[in-house]
Amino acid sequence: VPSLTGDPTAEVLRRLHDDLRGLEGGEKSTSIPSLANADETLFGLALCSPDGYVSSAGDSEVEFGIQSISKAFTYALALSDRGRDTVHEHVGAEPSGEAFSAISLEAETGRPDNPLINAGAIVTCALVKGAGARERSARIHALMEACAGRELSFDETIYEEEQEASDRNRALAHFMRSAGSLTDDVDDTIEVYLRQCSVLVTTVDLATMAATLACGGVNPVTGDRVMSGEIARHVMTMMATCGMYDYSGEWMLRVGTPAKSGVSGGLITASPGQFGLGVVSPRLDHRGNSVRAVAACEQLAERFDLHALALPAGSLPVVREHEETWLEVAAGVVTVQGDLVFASMQGVLRAIEEVLDEGETILVLDLDRVTRIHTVAQQILQSVIDHLLERDRRVVIVDGAGRNAVTATAHVVSLAEAREWCDEQS
Amino acid sequence: VPSLTGDPTAEVLRRLHDDLRGLEGGEKSTSIPSLANADETLFGLALCSPDGYVSSAGDSEVEFGIQSISKAFTYALALSDRGRDTVHEHVGAEPSGEAFSAISLEAETGRPDNPLINAGAIVTCALVKGAGARERSARIHALMEACAGRELSFDETIYEEEQEASDRNRALAHFMRSAGSLTDDVDDTIEVYLRQCSVLVTTVDLATMAATLACGGVNPVTGDRVMSGEIARHVMTMMATCGMYDYSGEWMLRVGTPAKSGVSGGLITASPGQFGLGVVSPRLDHRGNSVRAVAACEQLAERFDLHALALPAGSLPVVREHEETWLEVAAGVVTVQGDLVFASMQGVLRAIEEVLDEGETILVLDLDRVTRIHTVAQQILQSVIDHLLERDRRVVIVDGAGRNAVTATAHVVSLAEAREWCDEQS
Amino acid sequence: VPSLTGDPTAEVLRRLHDDLRGLEGGEKSTSIPSLANADETLFGLALCSPDGYVSSAGDSEVEFGIQSISKAFTYALALSDRGRDTVHEHVGAEPSGEAFSAISLEAETGRPDNPLINAGAIVTCALVKGAGARERSARIHALMEACAGRELSFDETIYEEEQEASDRNRALAHFMRSAGSLTDDVDDTIEVYLRQCSVLVTTVDLATMAATLACGGVNPVTGDRVMSGEIARHVMTMMATCGMYDYSGEWMLRVGTPAKSGVSGGLITASPGQFGLGVVSPRLDHRGNSVRAVAACEQLAERFDLHALALPAGSLPVVREHEETWLEVAAGVVTVQGDLVFASMQGVLRAIEEVLDEGETILVLDLDRVTRIHTVAQQILQSVIDHLLERDRRVVIVDGAGRNAVTATAHVVSLAEAREWCDEQS
Amino acid sequence: VPSLTGDPTAEVLRRLHDDLRGLEGGEKSTSIPSLANADETLFGLALCSPDGYVSSAGDSEVEFGIQSISKAFTYALALSDRGRDTVHEHVGAEPSGEAFSAISLEAETGRPDNPLINAGAIVTCALVKGAGARERSARIHALMEACAGRELSFDETIYEEEQEASDRNRALAHFMRSAGSLTDDVDDTIEVYLRQCSVLVTTVDLATMAATLACGGVNPVTGDRVMSGEIARHVMTMMATCGMYDYSGEWMLRVGTPAKSGVSGGLITASPGQFGLGVVSPRLDHRGNSVRAVAACEQLAERFDLHALALPAGSLPVVREHEETWLEVAAGVVTVQGDLVFASMQGVLRAIEEVLDEGETILVLDLDRVTRIHTVAQQILQSVIDHLLERDRRVVIVDGAGRNAVTATAHVVSLAEAREWCDEQS
Repeated sequence: VPSLTGDPTAEVLRRLHDDLRGLEGGEKSTSIPSLANADETLFGLALCSPDGYVSSAGDSEVEFGIQSISKAFTYALALSDRGRDTVHEHVGAEPSGEAFSAISLEAETGRPDNPLINAGAIVTCALVKGAGARERSARIHALMEACAGRELSFDETIYEEEQEASDRNRALAHFMRSAGSLTDDVDDTIEVYLRQCSVLVTTVDLATMAATLACGGVNPVTGDRVMSGEIARHVMTMMATCGMYDYSGEWMLRVGTPAKSGVSGGLITASPGQFGLGVVSPRLDHRGNSVRAVAACEQLAERFDLHALALPAGSLPVVREHEETWLEVAAGVVTVQGDLVFASMQGVLRAIEEVLDEGETILVLDLDRVTRIHTVAQQILQSVIDHLLERDRRVVIVDGAGRNAVTATAHVVSLAEAREWCDEQS
Repeated sequence: VPSLTGDPTAEVLRRLHDDLRGLEGGEKSTSIPSLANADETLFGLALCSPDGYVSSAGDSEVEFGIQSISKAFTYALALSDRGRDTVHEHVGAEPSGEAFSAISLEAETGRPDNPLINAGAIVTCALVKGAGARERSARIHALMEACAGRELSFDETIYEEEQEASDRNRALAHFMRSAGSLTDDVDDTIEVYLRQCSVLVTTVDLATMAATLACGGVNPVTGDRVMSGEIARHVMTMMATCGMYDYSGEWMLRVGTPAKSGVSGGLITASPGQFGLGVVSPRLDHRGNSVRAVAACEQLAERFDLHALALPAGSLPVVREHEETWLEVAAGVVTVQGDLVFASMQGVLRAIEEVLDEGETILVLDLDRVTRIHTVAQQILQSVIDHLLERDRRVVIVDGAGRNAVTATAHVVSLAEAREWCDEQS
Repeated sequence: VPSLTGDPTAEVLRRLHDDLRGLEGGEKSTSIPSLANADETLFGLALCSPDGYVSSAGDSEVEFGIQSISKAFTYALALSDRGRDTVHEHVGAEPSGEAFSAISLEAETGRPDNPLINAGAIVTCALVKGAGARERSARIHALMEACAGRELSFDETIYEEEQEASDRNRALAHFMRSAGSLTDDVDDTIEVYLRQCSVLVTTVDLATMAATLACGGVNPVTGDRVMSGEIARHVMTMMATCGMYDYSGEWMLRVGTPAKSGVSGGLITASPGQFGLGVVSPRLDHRGNSVRAVAACEQLAERFDLHALALPAGSLPVVREHEETWLEVAAGVVTVQGDLVFASMQGVLRAIEEVLDEGETILVLDLDRVTRIHTVAQQILQSVIDHLLERDRRVVIVDGAGRNAVTATAHVVSLAEAREWCDEQS
Repeated sequence: VPSLTGDPTAEVLRRLHDDLRGLEGGEKSTSIPSLANADETLFGLALCSPDGYVSSAGDSEVEFGIQSISKAFTYALALSDRGRDTVHEHVGAEPSGEAFSAISLEAETGRPDNPLINAGAIVTCALVKGAGARERSARIHALMEACAGRELSFDETIYEEEQEASDRNRALAHFMRSAGSLTDDVDDTIEVYLRQCSVLVTTVDLATMAATLACGGVNPVTGDRVMSGEIARHVMTMMATCGMYDYSGEWMLRVGTPAKSGVSGGLITASPGQFGLGVVSPRLDHRGNSVRAVAACEQLAERFDLHALALPAGSLPVVREHEETWLEVAAGVVTVQGDLVFASMQGVLRAIEEVLDEGETILVLDLDRVTRIHTVAQQILQSVIDHLLERDRRVVIVDGAGRNAVTATAHVVSLAEAREWCDEQS
């Protein structure tokens, strides 16, 4: 349905699709017949915004095996089941600097480098709770469905082909059992590992799954909380440092948003609070990342500055105005707006210092236009209020709607009440 | 001078200093006498906010050798002199997964892994422009002074001791010359490399230098732009993936802000738009990071959620209100506030769809309360306006102060003018 | 039975046993309970000479698991079944420079480094012919019995414990299957591998097995040819470069005879044509070699120069005498003795040149005292005879007993006949 | 001068030269211009026998840079100057399993793997005694001349080109200084290292140098002892395990004689007591060994069994005859011949047991035909004699020429005297 506003996001994706459809280079994976026989013209893109709106282009509704992208979600489930500390007793958090199937365990601990390479994902499969391989697999499957917001099919053919080609992963599993970092049965753990890879998704699913991470664990389409905000952040952190194999560092330099790729040519990338993106195109570069998916993300990043370390909007001054006298009383008034985060509080403090330095004994702090106050800003604010009260200043907080329940020690009033109260003081 | 508001940041740092002063463990570096003889009780912390205010605790004004922290700034200068692409033809952007002085060059290219390990920093020293070692060293020194906002001393003793102990770095340099990734003279390049390490700083300097990165390349104390915002972001990206040696991944998981440590026990970490932090304490863990500095940052991160991938404040809805009819004419009015970024535009689009769906032909978009419009948001907005104009809708942008020069195709007026104009249409 | 000549070899072994019984250091393997619970005072030595006489000292008749020493014999059987070229398509011939269970396959080929480390021995187990694991195991067992000259027991407990602890070896097998260097079923191959390790031997067995290698494949006790001389030499070559893990090079420098050690503390070493030695003592050094066994061999080597590259006895001149005239005819006579090898032939040629240079036309070459003629010496001799015949010289070979069937073109006579014949010429 | 016997060795070399002249494959080294510009048709072979006779074929008198073959002789000089234990405190004795210029030092000690790879040879250069680089270089040069039996030229052009291209070796030197395994000045040590490589040799020189090793340190052409027999053996041992880079193991399997190759296409191989061989042909395989030189040696080895671990001639029985009664007295007579080594002594003991078991009280041991008695055989003999004397047997040693000074406790007489003496006893 063409909409009035024209879906400019879809327009961007369509243009990307047009630009990159002809991009040559790379080879399909031949690790299993399903991948070797994949349609290499497949090329789909989808973006899911924090309000749950999905835009897409190309073959965005064609299903393919999720492969290694599943590792991000199994890691999430392991974190949820066991907690960060227990999980990372068994698997490291460091980039391996090596290829995706490298056999490199930490010398002292026998831990695989991180949960997004094969060895590490085998470990997280073993950490997921459940009675037997089937139940554990079902729980991973269910988490992926919750993130995608719909039922996902399981592809028996892919699974059987993966079982046929599982020697390297079995080698990793036995190797880790001998090193003590894996204690579960190898056959069971490999079954869970291979089942997570054999789930079918579309790029629309991938975009929604990525957006669930980007929205702090809440699926923006269904509105369901799927994992805690902390876990979503852990997953994105790991994707930022380890998600693109030995291209991870350059990816962060060029694109700057946490990502995870898979051998079927799929890729997700998530920008906290901004979007989730899913792309698929089967031809892979020598590092195992989809050639067209990487190019698409790099072009997006070049046109829209999406870098996770870009200077955020919230860093602008939030002090709207301050005046040293107000009405007849010796009151200093500071009016702030927008979000109060750590950085913006510094300006607020400076403004308070200034309006009170002529001897004014009353501070009126107008929070009516404040949209949100971070924990750290609230702590700083309370500390300032207490400091002033101890020094015989009086503090009036203007918060007409009572949204910004910021303090237990100062008067919280509406602007009219504040004016009235000041009048009384004069 | 104790201030009225009490500097709650300094209070937090002081508490951290008290809590961690007694922390045992780690060993001073013994690589050169100056480090072996360092006062291991030294412990200072300083934080510089985006408005240039510095809070500190402990030995924050004691000078020590900057050592490897300088690598972040030499990388910045190399980027500025040569551009990202040229720099990264000579040095990779990947975590090495190895110790700080590892000899590991990329098999195909001979490039060292990244610019923040010794081998990579030797390459960036060679990429800095200047006639001879002295001029290049002077330019690096000047950049560090611009970031610190004051003149910095050079310690001849440290430099001479480093020359005495330079075999491993000379080995790296010759190794890279043989691999073709370094083409400069070894003696000259090593001189530049060792000189950058021998500059003296305090934690206040480090905090200011980190804040310069956090503020997109503008020193928040002096107000001078020292490097481009893009370069500052590149430096922070590299710090995020490679700055803490083989603890980088776990650091991002636990702390989440780009950091760089040095063998003298110094550490900087920068949160884009939020703060720059400098810490020093000479005892190092087995990965070469300061024991107390790491602990301090982990405690800070636990108390204040400073993670670079945390859900940003700006992700909240920015549509303040929208109403489908306004005055007598069939005008839909959408009032937005705060920052317009990619994510927030989705809600704006949805609101526009809604107010126009009853057949209203006029869109009044009130931007008076918008603090800032990102490039991508502006592009989306223009695309929507054009889309509506093509479909015979009329668009009025309310922007009384004219701050948000957003479009060339719609009327931009004040709210009063908008009302007046709408009256005329009825 | 104390013999008249007193068995000086046993005396040497007894003295070694006395000297080294108190040697401290090392740790028993704890990889399986049978090894962890082994009697660490066990210390036996045995030497088997090329005439099949066995001398021994200490616990030379106590049985223990053969463990990795079996790899030398499985390699021999694989060579016999498949030929050198086929075997080494699947396994390399290079020292790994690494520990015994290292996972390092040749980059291009996926071959393990050599047949005496775990990965390589798994491959040779797969190369042994036979229907299924049982038949292949039985054939390896039978070869070891033929080398030991007696029936050897199989220890079910060791085998079961090894199965329990087989993760690392299973990892290696799966890893090699994924690399293509192993094509057999993993479970079967590992069964063969573990069964070969679970055979019980005494040091007397080990000495006889080593002597079978030293005697070119003929068991000197039973007189049976067990393998070809070429295969015995291949096995000893591999033992020389790879048999002592990452101590192999230093072992050759200090001891100089091909050796193979095992995790149970056993060790064999073989000196071609000289002896086979077996030692056992369970405590291992950090490289996995028995502390007392290594010390025993180093002391033996220091006292008796047994180095495989020592200047051999056969390098002495073998020309006993030569005289330019003999009887009345112009005959040059050259009398040689001992072994004719490549090196000794040079002297023979020089002597022939000398006795014929006065114009003598008859060469009498007396081979009566020659004990043996190597192939290469025979080829050279025939070439010289032909050369002389072509130049109108006459050649008489004295070989009374006809042992040295050296030529088809010269007269071969007894000494008396030669004299008679020469008389006739005069 | 064509000789009467026709020099069959030269004939073999000529045939090899003919067979392999057309062999394709491999590439000249391009590390320095002199190598890049070398005449790739150059192909020479020479063999020097233990009596100092040199046979050759092809370009055997053309000079070229000795390159890495010099490492064997510098190692010999370091052993001579410092002793084996001191040398190997600084350099290992293990094959590296890696390429010739690999940077791999032992983790615990910082030692390079062995003296025949670049890093190890840099260390042995530093261990050679002498005041400064020039004197040390002169001493290495002199040793090589003593082994070649003539004055050798030094090529200034090669030396200067090597200095230009010395980065990798300088890297190794600095790396080892930082690890503590090298303590000398880098510039000096690299000068010595590069000078040893820049000496010019012909294949005739190489053959003579190899023969000097093969003859236990005595140059068979000049008759001069150049190094001790022990050092010659150490050098050959190291050549056996490490001389052909990562082809060393397969070389020993296929050829079986210690060898060392160089980047100029030269190769030496030495068979103890048998010969020294020198070959040159510039095209190298991917491991850095000359393609035609390797092929030539493999063909030689296939035709003449030259393997160092081949069953030696001396392993045959040396007991010529033994009779239980002699003359009228109850004397047992054992007549032995050839070389008495450890292995052959066993048969002698068995024969003695047999001739004395009827109650004979006199042993007549006829050593007249013995060519040589090894130390270990002498020790065993003395022990047997003492054992018999203690048991009231009488022992007469027949050694007419007194060559085999074997015992201090038995009568040593001529055969005639022995008979006479026995007569007296009857």
